[in-house]
Amino acid sequence: MRSTCRSLVCVAAFLVAGAFAWADEGMWTYDNIPASQWQSAYGFAPSAAWLERLRLASTRLNDGGSGSFVSPSGLIMSNHHVALNCIQNLSSQGHDYVNEGFYAATREQEPACPGYEVDVLLRIEDVTARVVAAAPQSASDEAASLARKAECARIEKACVAGGAERCDVVNLYRGGQYHLYVYKKYTDVRLVFAPEQQTAFFGGDPDNFTFPRHDLDVSFLRAYEKGQPAVPAAYLAWSSQGIGAGDVVFVSGNPGSTARLKTMDQVVADRDAILPTRLAFLRRTLDIARGYAAQGEEPARRVRARIFGLENSVKAYEGFIAALHDEAALARKAAEERALQERVRADAALLSAVGDPWTEIATAQKQHAARYAETIYVGYTGSKLLGIAGTIVRYVSETHKPNESRLDEFRDSNLASLENQLFSPAPIYADMERATLTGQLQQASDVLGREHPFVKAALAGQTPAEVAEKAVSGTKLADPKVRRALVKGGTRAIARSDDPMIALARRLEPLAIAVRHWLDDEIVAVYDRAGERLGRARWAVLGKSTYPDATFTLRITSGVVKGYPAEGTTVAPFTTFYGLYDRAAANGNRPPWDLPARWQEGAGRLKLATPLDFVSTADVVGGNSGSPVVDRQGQVVGLVFDGNIQSLALDYYYTEAQARTVAVDSRALIEALDKIYGASALVNEIRAAK
Amino acid sequence: MRSTCRSLVCVAAFLVAGAFAWADEGMWTYDNIPASQWQSAYGFAPSAAWLERLRLASTRLNDGGSGSFVSPSGLIMSNHHVALNCIQNLSSQGHDYVNEGFYAATREQEPACPGYEVDVLLRIEDVTARVVAAAPQSASDEAASLARKAECARIEKACVAGGAERCDVVNLYRGGQYHLYVYKKYTDVRLVFAPEQQTAFFGGDPDNFTFPRHDLDVSFLRAYEKGQPAVPAAYLAWSSQGIGAGDVVFVSGNPGSTARLKTMDQVVADRDAILPTRLAFLRRTLDIARGYAAQGEEPARRVRARIFGLENSVKAYEGFIAALHDEAALARKAAEERALQERVRADAALLSAVGDPWTEIATAQKQHAARYAETIYVGYTGSKLLGIAGTIVRYVSETHKPNESRLDEFRDSNLASLENQLFSPAPIYADMERATLTGQLQQASDVLGREHPFVKAALAGQTPAEVAEKAVSGTKLADPKVRRALVKGGTRAIARSDDPMIALARRLEPLAIAVRHWLDDEIVAVYDRAGERLGRARWAVLGKSTYPDATFTLRITSGVVKGYPAEGTTVAPFTTFYGLYDRAAANGNRPPWDLPARWQEGAGRLKLATPLDFVSTADVVGGNSGSPVVDRQGQVVGLVFDGNIQSLALDYYYTEAQARTVAVDSRALIEALDKIYGASALVNEIRAAK
Repeated sequence: MRSTCRSLVCVAAFLVAGAFAWADEGMWTYDNIPASQWQSAYGFAPSAAWLERLRLASTRLNDGGSGSFVSPSGLIMSNHHVALNCIQNLSSQGHDYVNEGFYAATREQEPACPGYEVDVLLRIEDVTARVVAAAPQSASDEAASLARKAECARIEKACVAGGAERCDVVNLYRGGQYHLYVYKKYTDVRLVFAPEQQTAFFGGDPDNFTFPRHDLDVSFLRAYEKGQPAVPAAYLAWSSQGIGAGDVVFVSGNPGSTARLKTMDQVVADRDAILPTRLAFLRRTLDIARGYAAQGEEPARRVRARIFGLENSVKAYEGFIAALHDEAALARKAAEERALQERVRADAALLSAVGDPWTEIATAQKQHAARYAETIYVGYTGSKLLGIAGTIVRYVSETHKPNESRLDEFRDSNLASLENQLFSPAPIYADMERATLTGQLQQASDVLGREHPFVKAALAGQTPAEVAEKAVSGTKLADPKVRRALVKGGTRAIARSDDPMIALARRLEPLAIAVRHWLDDEIVAVYDRAGERLGRARWAVLGKSTYPDATFTLRITSGVVKGYPAEGTTVAPFTTFYGLYDRAAANGNRPPWDLPARWQEGAGRLKLATPLDFVSTADVVGGNSGSPVVDRQGQVVGLVFDGNIQSLALDYYYTEAQARTVAVDSRALIEALDKIYGASALVNEIRAAK
Repeated sequence: MRSTCRSLVCVAAFLVAGAFAWADEGMWTYDNIPASQWQSAYGFAPSAAWLERLRLASTRLNDGGSGSFVSPSGLIMSNHHVALNCIQNLSSQGHDYVNEGFYAATREQEPACPGYEVDVLLRIEDVTARVVAAAPQSASDEAASLARKAECARIEKACVAGGAERCDVVNLYRGGQYHLYVYKKYTDVRLVFAPEQQTAFFGGDPDNFTFPRHDLDVSFLRAYEKGQPAVPAAYLAWSSQGIGAGDVVFVSGNPGSTARLKTMDQVVADRDAILPTRLAFLRRTLDIARGYAAQGEEPARRVRARIFGLENSVKAYEGFIAALHDEAALARKAAEERALQERVRADAALLSAVGDPWTEIATAQKQHAARYAETIYVGYTGSKLLGIAGTIVRYVSETHKPNESRLDEFRDSNLASLENQLFSPAPIYADMERATLTGQLQQASDVLGREHPFVKAALAGQTPAEVAEKAVSGTKLADPKVRRALVKGGTRAIARSDDPMIALARRLEPLAIAVRHWLDDEIVAVYDRAGERLGRARWAVLGKSTYPDATFTLRITSGVVKGYPAEGTTVAPFTTFYGLYDRAAANGNRPPWDLPARWQEGAGRLKLATPLDFVSTADVVGGNSGSPVVDRQGQVVGLVFDGNIQSLALDYYYTEAQARTVAVDSRALIEALDKIYGASALVNEIRAAK
């Protein structure tokens, strides 16, 4: 009993100060790894040289994923789905590389990926003092924020002027730290290898977000400089042995963002109101799309991508909701929050600086939840033509205002990308539009009620089908030239237009813009302002003992190769090529479990017991796709491409109970490149990298 | 609106009158199949000849399972786990057929299974009128029951006297019908083939009750008559094609019993009180056993079977509880119950005959739930030695009473089997006894509280460990001779015994017997009496439009080969040999996923895409193990051996959402017999059966 602190405070400190419930939690910045935590959990902590090599070999792709150099000649390993845009863009009528796969046996055959950029993090510089000093103590929240943004821009500009290729000031710990990330940038990126999409994405949407899994979700790219293969500052060596169950692994990549810093009130509102409302909307929208698809082969083709996206979202939302019904996990989250609140209340200076952001957020959250359905339905989600009409009406009205008073997406800096979308010649199908618009109006009427002003304005006494029929068959908006003319014609052209879709949008816009302003000004603004003070409180109490939330910048995370309990048994941490052929045969080789011809023919050449995919407890979210998985030696043992269905929890909290990161096993990559694809030059290059 | 019945009654009739929520529900007696239901669901209803052949080819094994004749020479197919006792009994030091498997290439090599009996249902006779007439209208519940039992015995006796080999009057629909089942009986049953247990039970306890599954849980036996292979009245032909996804299948076997007729009050009490209390007991008892096992290899060996049994029970109870949290399923059950109650209330004669059994059961149920922990802990469950001591003390006291006043298991007719167990020389390990007894006393103290009379009597001021230590080290009850002497010595010997375990049992028995009498007289008797009237009500309203609850007599059930949603994806309805090798390789060939040597060597000889196990929606529970699965042609396509984890729901209600019956695929049986076991004579016999 020689403790000098009262028990409550000790408990609080224990709960909040980096003592994680699980050993493998955390997306750590490279300048702040939890060395002693790793040492005690794994009997291993990496050296500075080990860390530097992994950092310099890690790449970020501007398509939203991660990757790594795996040879001294600029060879980059990433996922098929990260390079998919490139593979698609390089395909032509005669060569569908998405379906057939691609392999350049020589460098001359490597085609450039249009618009690709690859970044390598060269160094991290703490610029917190400069950024914080830019805002005077007396400044309002808003003024301070503007001053800090301006200072960040100055720092970035000076950095580039000093010769760096890319410089980003990253706001970490929600304003607790500002770090300058200096990158080497490669803009000449070429395609070396891609398997058939059917191999990369075997099992399609049903198996998406699941394990056991049997995907070879890989692509190889090559960075070039001045027309020659780039010589990266570092690259990863390939493990000849691979990894085993129980082994520690590290993942280096760029997690995008999470909901982990939401308050308990927000989490509970998400669970009980926000996510279920959104899920109901998604499910019904999916029903509408499926109903349309059922009308024939051509409708099915037209709506396929939309159905895929909706199915993916439904699965994700179901996963989020399920995760938020894990009472033990929520109890841990609540205890952490209470402990932080205790610490703030016990520190008068901190309390006066941050106030009570929890209550402010809770108040906004209640209003948000109450009107959440309106934020979905009172607007233009669904029909493409109505979306275009609504955007045109709003465009004309917003661009009349001074730049700083406009909605974000209508500010001058964002107009080009908005116009790019608005004037896109992508095909629009009238029958699909009718089905979609009818469905979305019917949903709005069912959910908001027939007496809701938006529903009354939309239907004007008619049925949803009648409104959709008139608007779709009468509109000329399918033609981008008509859209341009309306935008050019401005307020007058809009007011005078007799296009029935424009007329519909005119009726809806006053209600839609009101909901949007309410959401931006009354809800999101509160979340932002209170959230920033909450971040300050967390930083004051926890500092660098914890990791900053994901920011799509380079992080390192650790984990163990480990199965998990599910469906009454234990899921093994590995699958093998045997399992790939089993899943195909068990499903009668029917899509999405059909094997490409070369895999059907090549079974006899493969060592079928070779591990194909494996899971680990590494803390990974979206943006980590394509991250290398390395062992203690820093050698490549795998390639992250997904998580299991339980890993959707990781958006809200870390858990090792069942959540797992899914990676392709490095042994399967070599075995398949060699025996199925005959990519011997590529195999030799990978194997030669030491 | 020309309906002649009021809407409420119509709804009630709809809900209760055979309009099942799922097409494949029902364990139908062979004399009452739902032909029109099957015709509309599958476009197929079997002919009388089809049904007769399947019935006459179906066998019941007295080891508690089912089977079928699959050749004109008496060859019987069943599960490995159904024939396990035989395989074990035939093994000797040099020949461990459980581990090594067994194959008799010639008839001369087929050894007899000691004590096996196989029954074939020859005919069904409705004797309801005779049985019901035996009890005068005026008789009390108890007198009527006795009169009916006596009449059943007379009918059975007369049947056997008439030359039948086995005759059982089966109480169907809880007294709604009494049918005489006349059997052909085979008592000379020999072993033909068994794979290694490791093949039959691949995946062991973790994979038990689960799917995807990779077990070859088969045995072949042969019935003999007068020293010659029996010539059965019918046998099943083997399908050369096998079954496909979406195909209808039929299962013929002997389901044991279910909890489907429990009232909603009972179901809710099971869910909220009974099952969780039992599960907590099982989990903690498992912890105690595992703690003992952790002490070394020999303790682990000693307690292995006990741990296996406990794990199995824990998994089953978890499955039951999960099933009872399916709100939609419970709502259906509740609606059915309300509908039945409506019908009873609307029929004055029926109401006066059956009263309100629901309330009577609910009242007893409340008392039962309140004292449920006592029914577990106030007694002798756990330590074998304490169990023996308690049985001896009770034996002496019970056998002093007139036969009809004794507890069931001490009645003259049951004494032989009780003595068989009581005087068994099976080894008893003192260290395991100490651990078990300490644990069970500690549990009783924790759950019932230290002030509970039973706990006070057991501990008498000492710790559980002290009580266990003294009782176990001082007792001589490990020696069966000592037990016999005590039983022989009677009341006096018990009273004078200074054996500390007997002394402990003497202290506990007054409390234990009180709980037992309360349970038998106040609770179970009410369930029985009220349950019988409830059965009468169901019979009056539903009659043969529904199926009688399982009674370990022959039933036919239908289903469709169909995967199901789980873990975010779709589980395919089949596994293949590829999957078997995948699961072994993915687990590093470690037990319980290790493959026997001949399977490791034989992979190259197998057609690996051959379907191994498959699931269907057939309505199957315990007792159906070994049942043949047949197609429309009545040909063998599979062999039932288990259900998935969700099939545990079938104890309480039928559901097709995820619950599936698991069977070995007939194609895998032939492929393995041929390519792995070289059992060509057996393969030829099966294939020749047309």
